[in-house]
Amino acid sequence: MLYPTPIAKLIDSYSKLPGIGIKTATRLAFYTIGMSDEDVNDFAKNLLSAKRELTYCSQCGNLTDEDPCAICADESRDRTTILIVEDSRDVSAMENIQEYHGLYHVLQGLISPMNGIGPDDINLKSLISRLMESDVTEVIIATNATADGEATAMYISRVLKPAGIKVTRLARGLAVGADIEYADELTLLRAIQNRTEL
Amino acid sequence: MLYPTPIAKLIDSYSKLPGIGIKTATRLAFYTIGMSDEDVNDFAKNLLSAKRELTYCSQCGNLTDEDPCAICADESRDRTTILIVEDSRDVSAMENIQEYHGLYHVLQGLISPMNGIGPDDINLKSLISRLMESDVTEVIIATNATADGEATAMYISRVLKPAGIKVTRLARGLAVGADIEYADELTLLRAIQNRTEL
Repeated sequence: MLYPTPIAKLIDSYSKLPGIGIKTATRLAFYTIGMSDEDVNDFAKNLLSAKRELTYCSQCGNLTDEDPCAICADESRDRTTILIVEDSRDVSAMENIQEYHGLYHVLQGLISPMNGIGPDDINLKSLISRLMESDVTEVIIATNATADGEATAMYISRVLKPAGIKVTRLARGLAVGADIEYADELTLLRAIQNRTEL
Repeated sequence: MLYPTPIAKLIDSYSKLPGIGIKTATRLAFYTIGMSDEDVNDFAKNLLSAKRELTYCSQCGNLTDEDPCAICADESRDRTTILIVEDSRDVSAMENIQEYHGLYHVLQGLISPMNGIGPDDINLKSLISRLMESDVTEVIIATNATADGEATAMYISRVLKPAGIKVTRLARGLAVGADIEYADELTLLRAIQNRTEL
């Protein structure tokens, strides 16, 4: 015997989460038993409703509970700019700085030749049809600076440039507060290449 | 706007768990949305059933889904020995080594004068009444070697010794595989005090 069935099953569920091993799962399961009835009921309800109620916006592909999403539906936003990101968390990070007021396009993935993920496997086709019938003049690519992120950025820029759309990407360089001494070589290279005039 | 309501609520639920901050909670919530329907439904069900179906054994105080618990109900176990632990995880650790075949008593807490937790606030009274009407000849105290654990052990031994019950506690000394060089002073002191003959 180890644990009674209900707690063994809960440990099993917790340990399916990323970064949570069997010891942490056990700790969380025992903590759960000590939580208030209300908190546990809410937790279970929130798990189910997050899974059931969330869909992807038919326009931008962002996670949303209403279609179109709040950003696409917002008439006050600048409809001439689209910022392309990998997933919904990137939208949230960008919205947090309250500087960008255009629209988004969420790829929900990146082109990854190594993993057999091609342009048709991510939310890219809808971007093309979206651009056809819109007033968009600039597309900003904001994928991460990984191999897959770079490959995706290159692919998108090659597809869009012939159509006469301005394609830009986020600046690469030293992070604010970063030490030159400890910066990696590629970052330093980009920082000197993309230097700006004072 | 940050996240759609369903995911914001789920992040909130995850961040109520111990050791899980807002960043990890966000990562877990997004991971949950990508999980299979079956896994999420099971997770929600397991949360509720762990909270609803588990009770404390009326005899030993262990967490169980049936009363009395599997250990108390097991006729093959030695009913002359009771091992006292702080919580159900300690029972599980002890059962794992398959060396102890007596009964348990789970305190579900420790006496802690600093936090205002006295003998009446933990599952101790039922131990006394349990000992009155039983054939128990030895009580083994297996509380952790913390200030509260030591205080609890001292209290229990003072209450039980006058009743003529043999009270023992787990050996303290160097952990197997531990280096003498790196052992803390208290452990080394206990190791030399409790030395055994070869």
